[in-house]
Amino acid sequence: MSLVDPDRLFPAEAKLRGIARALYDSVSDLPIISPHGHCDPSWFAENARFPDPAALFVVPDHYVFRMLVSQGVPMADLGVPRVDGGPVETDPRAIWRRFAAHFHTLRGTPSAMWLTHAFVHVFGIEAPFTAQTADRFYDHIEAQLATDDFRPRALFDRFNIEALATTEGALDDLAHHKAIRDSGWQGRVITTYRPDTVVNPECDGFANNVARLGALTGEDTASWAGYLAAHCKRRAYFKEHGGATATDHGHPTARTADLPQSEAAALFAKALAGTCSAEEADLFRGQMLTEMARMSLEDGLTLQIHAGSWRNHSAGVLRQFGRDKGFDIPRRTDYVGALKPLLDAVGMEPDLRIILFTLDETVYGRELAPLAGAYPALRLGPPWWFFDSYEGIRRFREATTETCGFYNTAGFNDDTRAFCSIPARHDVARRSDCAYLATLVGTGRLGEGEAFEVAQDLSYRLAKSAYRL
Amino acid sequence: MSLVDPDRLFPAEAKLRGIARALYDSVSDLPIISPHGHCDPSWFAENARFPDPAALFVVPDHYVFRMLVSQGVPMADLGVPRVDGGPVETDPRAIWRRFAAHFHTLRGTPSAMWLTHAFVHVFGIEAPFTAQTADRFYDHIEAQLATDDFRPRALFDRFNIEALATTEGALDDLAHHKAIRDSGWQGRVITTYRPDTVVNPECDGFANNVARLGALTGEDTASWAGYLAAHCKRRAYFKEHGGATATDHGHPTARTADLPQSEAAALFAKALAGTCSAEEADLFRGQMLTEMARMSLEDGLTLQIHAGSWRNHSAGVLRQFGRDKGFDIPRRTDYVGALKPLLDAVGMEPDLRIILFTLDETVYGRELAPLAGAYPALRLGPPWWFFDSYEGIRRFREATTETCGFYNTAGFNDDTRAFCSIPARHDVARRSDCAYLATLVGTGRLGEGEAFEVAQDLSYRLAKSAYRL
Amino acid sequence: MSLVDPDRLFPAEAKLRGIARALYDSVSDLPIISPHGHCDPSWFAENARFPDPAALFVVPDHYVFRMLVSQGVPMADLGVPRVDGGPVETDPRAIWRRFAAHFHTLRGTPSAMWLTHAFVHVFGIEAPFTAQTADRFYDHIEAQLATDDFRPRALFDRFNIEALATTEGALDDLAHHKAIRDSGWQGRVITTYRPDTVVNPECDGFANNVARLGALTGEDTASWAGYLAAHCKRRAYFKEHGGATATDHGHPTARTADLPQSEAAALFAKALAGTCSAEEADLFRGQMLTEMARMSLEDGLTLQIHAGSWRNHSAGVLRQFGRDKGFDIPRRTDYVGALKPLLDAVGMEPDLRIILFTLDETVYGRELAPLAGAYPALRLGPPWWFFDSYEGIRRFREATTETCGFYNTAGFNDDTRAFCSIPARHDVARRSDCAYLATLVGTGRLGEGEAFEVAQDLSYRLAKSAYRL
Repeated sequence: MSLVDPDRLFPAEAKLRGIARALYDSVSDLPIISPHGHCDPSWFAENARFPDPAALFVVPDHYVFRMLVSQGVPMADLGVPRVDGGPVETDPRAIWRRFAAHFHTLRGTPSAMWLTHAFVHVFGIEAPFTAQTADRFYDHIEAQLATDDFRPRALFDRFNIEALATTEGALDDLAHHKAIRDSGWQGRVITTYRPDTVVNPECDGFANNVARLGALTGEDTASWAGYLAAHCKRRAYFKEHGGATATDHGHPTARTADLPQSEAAALFAKALAGTCSAEEADLFRGQMLTEMARMSLEDGLTLQIHAGSWRNHSAGVLRQFGRDKGFDIPRRTDYVGALKPLLDAVGMEPDLRIILFTLDETVYGRELAPLAGAYPALRLGPPWWFFDSYEGIRRFREATTETCGFYNTAGFNDDTRAFCSIPARHDVARRSDCAYLATLVGTGRLGEGEAFEVAQDLSYRLAKSAYRL
Repeated sequence: MSLVDPDRLFPAEAKLRGIARALYDSVSDLPIISPHGHCDPSWFAENARFPDPAALFVVPDHYVFRMLVSQGVPMADLGVPRVDGGPVETDPRAIWRRFAAHFHTLRGTPSAMWLTHAFVHVFGIEAPFTAQTADRFYDHIEAQLATDDFRPRALFDRFNIEALATTEGALDDLAHHKAIRDSGWQGRVITTYRPDTVVNPECDGFANNVARLGALTGEDTASWAGYLAAHCKRRAYFKEHGGATATDHGHPTARTADLPQSEAAALFAKALAGTCSAEEADLFRGQMLTEMARMSLEDGLTLQIHAGSWRNHSAGVLRQFGRDKGFDIPRRTDYVGALKPLLDAVGMEPDLRIILFTLDETVYGRELAPLAGAYPALRLGPPWWFFDSYEGIRRFREATTETCGFYNTAGFNDDTRAFCSIPARHDVARRSDCAYLATLVGTGRLGEGEAFEVAQDLSYRLAKSAYRL
Repeated sequence: MSLVDPDRLFPAEAKLRGIARALYDSVSDLPIISPHGHCDPSWFAENARFPDPAALFVVPDHYVFRMLVSQGVPMADLGVPRVDGGPVETDPRAIWRRFAAHFHTLRGTPSAMWLTHAFVHVFGIEAPFTAQTADRFYDHIEAQLATDDFRPRALFDRFNIEALATTEGALDDLAHHKAIRDSGWQGRVITTYRPDTVVNPECDGFANNVARLGALTGEDTASWAGYLAAHCKRRAYFKEHGGATATDHGHPTARTADLPQSEAAALFAKALAGTCSAEEADLFRGQMLTEMARMSLEDGLTLQIHAGSWRNHSAGVLRQFGRDKGFDIPRRTDYVGALKPLLDAVGMEPDLRIILFTLDETVYGRELAPLAGAYPALRLGPPWWFFDSYEGIRRFREATTETCGFYNTAGFNDDTRAFCSIPARHDVARRSDCAYLATLVGTGRLGEGEAFEVAQDLSYRLAKSAYRL
């Protein structure tokens, strides 16, 4: 069996495998709903060709280059730009060869599976990828990238994507999204409101960012009321001009707060003045999650909370190569105490959608499933980041389903900036879920007819309803 | 395969399944030992018929109604009484129809399996339970509930229950238990001493409760010595008049303490005066666990610690509908530091039985199994609450057996207030354990002859010995 | 199937089992690399016969006797010496009979598997081990221990051990290792530098120990610079005279620090003066991990961190029987914040080897794999202590491989003081890893040819390279 075997990821036992295959066959052709991710909207606005194989597969993908770095390959040798503009490898073929020479270090990882899937299914090249075959792969992929069939919009259509959400900061002008809409191309690429830079007092330039938010919205963001009004307006702008159906919030913890408005206003003033302590900054971020949830009650945007990552853990890597370089490390994260203020404020609202993500798998069964199995506003997002994988999905289902069922989960999302991995990721998720469902059917925990319904729900319907797509 | 397939929950692979089936066949007819739960003793004292299907299956079962609430059904529409006595649904058939219409949201949960088992094996009705069949189910169950065969004592006998423990507060007069004994009916229904209201300074009316404990026992509970003596007397009363063999303690944490008696007395005085801080209240609860363990050394009652639940997490639900409404959420719980004072005091006593329960599965392998695999006084209780399920039992066995073996565990208990689910729960536990044992046998980790012995132990003998039944 | 079935620990499904068997057959005869453990070097220096079966299998093995203690057998009845020299059982046959009578309490544990393996494969006796067969086992083993074929060096050769590391304190004179080298025997038994007694200010006699370190090295260990220089010299001594390739550090937490040298020197002065608070002692230990890592950069010794055990949890057992009596209990352990100072100092060094061990399995996927999958200096040690087992290894691979692959792990080590269990432990590890690899192959997550390469790596090559053996 190979990494592209038609039965991959299904249970080994023949009867379970048969059930899994039947379930998968019923969902494998469904359109892809990608309600959260980090693709660059300019790809679809400009529809330019991708530069080269290394720029497509290696340089922007921290899943890939962090593994090579962990095995002793200098980051600069993989073409990752330095903060100081100092010299790094610029020859894409040299980068590609290093990637190939270390491809075996990815054995057993989802990246190996995604990359192989893209080589085979997107670029039609099936040989083992090694130092020996590196050039052959390079030349083949390079030749295809030069054709119109491999431009972003063509791939988007080929991938059968029904909707793809990108993520933009609150100050973004959404020019690319407007260009996509104006172009006449029918692909549905929408934005997501990500206000970290105007919500997090510890963000560089916070006060300036808030002032710019004011300028963009015509609100007096020096006042708490004006600041909240500016968010409301900006959210409406993201809905109207970028098709947004959701907001996204990446906080170090899941802390929420629901202060009296006068205290919140005073805290905001300190944040603007740059005099918040670390504790107060955290409190302000927590307050803003509750404020955002209240706005969601009004405008219907789904609220996503991505909590628990210690970003840019290595001081040296941050200094030399900047943010998002594969050195973000999860930490233990509490949700039960952290979310209580938010949940006491709006958790019982049946029309609100709050989607929780975690990098701390210990909370699946202990905290998240019991919360989502009680509060109407909560849904559980799919396994995130390191856990977007066969084992990660298995653990998620095994730990949550018995407590909150399937219908308090939100379907799959790929959360990727690696465009060519999107079909592979959704395929892995559908296969993994079908493997899980087959196991339930084969051990008398779910009826077979029910399993076919649930497979549709997990692959397609739940994502649409959780994100109102 | 259906949810009542004879081979349900057994491994899919044919050889393992055969072993599991043989193991299960050897224990499936053993009497049920239910040493911990929350059935209402009045059922067996009065032996009145159960009012209606909704009152039997929906209204009192927070496993069920919290799931419907999480999907947007208002709690009042399910007949859950309001604290203020305000209007809620009173038509049992309307409640039942809502239940049926949302039954699919329970897919994959143990509740779906328990309910289906009760429908089929208790009430003899096997159709899919949906909005379409709701009335048929209702009428069928209602008709049976009207017959003598479905009165509590008849069901108790039919369920082959050898012993059933209920749980009563320390101030309970045990009138129902006395009525059962006086009735001449032979069913063994016993009580458990649960002193939370007279042990927890944060409990409403704590001082009054302690005064009542004094009145009941003729001890001066205004003094620390009298208070301890009153507990001793009340425990003896529970043993003599209710057949109690155990006590039970539901604390937010597993904290224990072993203060000098003078400090404990001073703390008790503060507790009575209502001047304990939250920290002091926690310390007092911890001290009382150690005191209770010392009393157990004298009177032989098994001590159960159920730690780690954040009770009544939603302020709104607590305000409108009161306690125990499905909004109790587990939290991370430390046992290693928390139990040390208790264990230093009495942990090496070979005749003491302390049974530990947790809602934090991360402690199974890291803390509880190493502790139980060393201290003679400790036994591990079965997976509790959200984890009383196929996957929960599997994780428990996989995480604990290699470190503390089988003989430091305490068999199964159902911990339920849903009487009709008792056979289903014990059946799931027996099947899940046999599936685990079959896997050990099939992979050379346990001899087949040994497995048959262990199956008897897990299904019957360990519960009897852990609770001295 | 029995505990010594040739297919034990392989997946039950026939096709997976076939793959697992083929993988295992390709590695089962590889020499054993045992790069970390606690065998007594005097065994190989003196090559005296082992005293008796109880002294070989029961009295020194806290895995075994703690289980019997947990079931109510007094520790003294098992011959464990008392601190006060008071009476304990001295008849080895009486100890052996108690062991046999309680052997069933080890069912399902790795100890049962290791012991059975040793009985069968080392001593050639295959009957069930029970109270009835206890004497037969005793007489058989005793007779064999009296022969030259069962002396330590003969067993070492029979076990096919290529290299075995013991662990000695920094003040050890390595006389046994020198004797081994001088003996002309070719077995490679090397030491490991374990400086806890001269690094931990809370260790009894810390200041004296440091003074002795000074005397041994000719450095002025009253000064910080001299103290560091003494460590450097002592490490060199361990390399030269004991063949050491690694150091080992057993700390209660994974805390590290990288203080300015002047602050470190001041802290050291407090440590010597015995005036460190608990917090300062912890800080000093953390500082020394970073100092040791810097020395490793110079001398190439691999640095091992074994963190997270609450040693000697029972005050009573510690008082009566002393340290290391099976009452060491794991605790929740943070690595992300704890290791940051060390990693900021040396984590990006590609030639450094830091091997992380944990007793908190929750950090495998959440913390350790993300760290090891990024920092070049880090490798993950195999499952440790309670988790050196089939399920422990399975959970380790499932939780880490997808994030950090295979090549950021360090192969297996047995970490044992039970010499006869070494072949059994490596066999369990090889079988468990092959079972995991077979599952990957059978579900399309790894090519079959790749799996054979990885099996060699996990069984042999990774341990050699991680420890530079």
